[in-house]
Amino acid sequence: MKALLTIALDAMGGDSAPRIVVRGANIARRRYPDVRFRLFGDERRIAPLLKRMPKLRRAIAIDHTEEVVTDDDKPSHALRQGKRSSMRLAINAVRDGEAEGVVSAGNTGALMAMAKFTLKTLPGIDRPAIAAVFPNYRSESVMLDLGANVECNADNLIQFAVMGSEFGRSVLGLENPSVGLLNVGTEEVKGHESVRQAAAILREDGAGIRYHGFVEGDDIAMGTVDVIVSDGFSGNIALKTIEGSVKLYSEFMRKAFKSSVSSRLGYLLARRSLNKMRARVDPRRYNGAMFLGLNGNVVKSHGSTDAFGFANAIGVAVDMAAHRFNEKITAQLDRGSLSMPVRTRAAAS
Amino acid sequence: MKALLTIALDAMGGDSAPRIVVRGANIARRRYPDVRFRLFGDERRIAPLLKRMPKLRRAIAIDHTEEVVTDDDKPSHALRQGKRSSMRLAINAVRDGEAEGVVSAGNTGALMAMAKFTLKTLPGIDRPAIAAVFPNYRSESVMLDLGANVECNADNLIQFAVMGSEFGRSVLGLENPSVGLLNVGTEEVKGHESVRQAAAILREDGAGIRYHGFVEGDDIAMGTVDVIVSDGFSGNIALKTIEGSVKLYSEFMRKAFKSSVSSRLGYLLARRSLNKMRARVDPRRYNGAMFLGLNGNVVKSHGSTDAFGFANAIGVAVDMAAHRFNEKITAQLDRGSLSMPVRTRAAAS
Repeated sequence: MKALLTIALDAMGGDSAPRIVVRGANIARRRYPDVRFRLFGDERRIAPLLKRMPKLRRAIAIDHTEEVVTDDDKPSHALRQGKRSSMRLAINAVRDGEAEGVVSAGNTGALMAMAKFTLKTLPGIDRPAIAAVFPNYRSESVMLDLGANVECNADNLIQFAVMGSEFGRSVLGLENPSVGLLNVGTEEVKGHESVRQAAAILREDGAGIRYHGFVEGDDIAMGTVDVIVSDGFSGNIALKTIEGSVKLYSEFMRKAFKSSVSSRLGYLLARRSLNKMRARVDPRRYNGAMFLGLNGNVVKSHGSTDAFGFANAIGVAVDMAAHRFNEKITAQLDRGSLSMPVRTRAAAS
Repeated sequence: MKALLTIALDAMGGDSAPRIVVRGANIARRRYPDVRFRLFGDERRIAPLLKRMPKLRRAIAIDHTEEVVTDDDKPSHALRQGKRSSMRLAINAVRDGEAEGVVSAGNTGALMAMAKFTLKTLPGIDRPAIAAVFPNYRSESVMLDLGANVECNADNLIQFAVMGSEFGRSVLGLENPSVGLLNVGTEEVKGHESVRQAAAILREDGAGIRYHGFVEGDDIAMGTVDVIVSDGFSGNIALKTIEGSVKLYSEFMRKAFKSSVSSRLGYLLARRSLNKMRARVDPRRYNGAMFLGLNGNVVKSHGSTDAFGFANAIGVAVDMAAHRFNEKITAQLDRGSLSMPVRTRAAAS
């Protein structure tokens, strides 16, 4: 039994919970027959959804609770008042070794606060970061932080670089992932002090990181590097800007294809190829932001995703658990990257 | 003669100068028959390009200089050593009242440094900002700062809001443009201190600004507000991220259409509609970033644009001059927005 992976699911998080959580789990069950799920939430609402899913019923256990964290709850409030919430109990399962990862589509701030409090950060990591995988011209890359830390010093950025690099290696399967720092130009003098300081240290002492240099916003799509490191403010703005731009472009396309008889016909002829392309940039395919730097695998799904997107977020948690990402990070930090933050502090003072 | 507008052109700035500058001027001449151009640069390289453009020859004057600012020149070096450069002389023409605006596709940092030094900032504006117009789902919006100021305090952001709002009114022709502050969330508690402070002041005392609230990265494409105000670091990252995303999407599309016989045929049928759509997001159409807050109209063209793109950058300078944007900003600041920075400082201390 313990050879199987178990993923804890916050069944009540997200716009269409628990429906998309249950359906997402059903898709994930087919993809990962060796994974078991623990659904935390209101059994009276979950059970009816399982009626026609006998196979899923055998792959899951339900932990009943009536409390939920809402999207409007402040993280501090959720932390104090939500001790019996579906979100918190799902995280507790990871802390207690009953699950190898947790997925929630609920309140991001509350999830981060609870995960930090319950699981603690890895030794050598001051602050966890939110990371996600993005498609690019070449293949795909991972970017962090996407919003957990609005202000970041050089130490934080270097720790993000260490984590991103290890993620590239162990989860994306890259031999020697390249790392870039997101900035407003590629010259050494550009940007905030924190990003220049982090660059100076990474240039001098990579400690297992293949440091590429500064990268700019368009390098994300170009795939200039495998790992893009940013403070959480600019990273979040880049993330949302990508989402917005892709949506706008798709919408303009949709209108263009509808605008005449000949373009409608053209669409029908090109549809298969276009759908393949669309699948490549489908945000649901890249659903599942990872909280890196915690003693446990925590994945945040988009609140408005569907079952397919939620299943992909589950896949991210499975990947992180299967590749033992946290153990590798810890080993990496033990091997010497741990010395880096100390050296940064010296340089900063 | 003085009823005509004159635009000064740095003929030597940009990847394909002076060729695209001359050709761009030729396109702009047809669009704006009442505009005259002064081209600053190497006459021996400019004159041969004019051979087959008799009409353009009548609309321009050439101010010969052999000095140029290169893309590698540091702004401080360009400022000290480039006093006879094509860029500097073109800016001087605006200072001396010989031209109503200047356009350059050269080194951005050098252009900003020279423009600031030569033209000075408008009274009430501490720092000029780089602004550009973006297409969105609804129509278009203006965003600033796009990279002139890596660090911004609340004062700077409020001044950007005043300038952006006036730009929306006088150049985009909006009656009462809405203004949003770019942030990582819409709740009051989100973001840096500077953005929260600016928000508090704008909420309380709009001083002629219709303040919408915080906006996120995806609001740029959605067109949630007419004016997006950001610090130069995040603004630059958003700008480049949009460019990269649009390029990636177009490239994926191009590949999709080429991937089968039926999709090639589909493309041919839909081509007219697609081209119309593409024109709407064509970066050349939106070429021409404005330096707002200076005593003179300065427009920066993309260094790698073509003649069509350069002509559009000229169009931006013509628009700003024709709408007397700077006079309106000054009037607006005189009317009371000027008091705002003082109040911000009080709030900050």
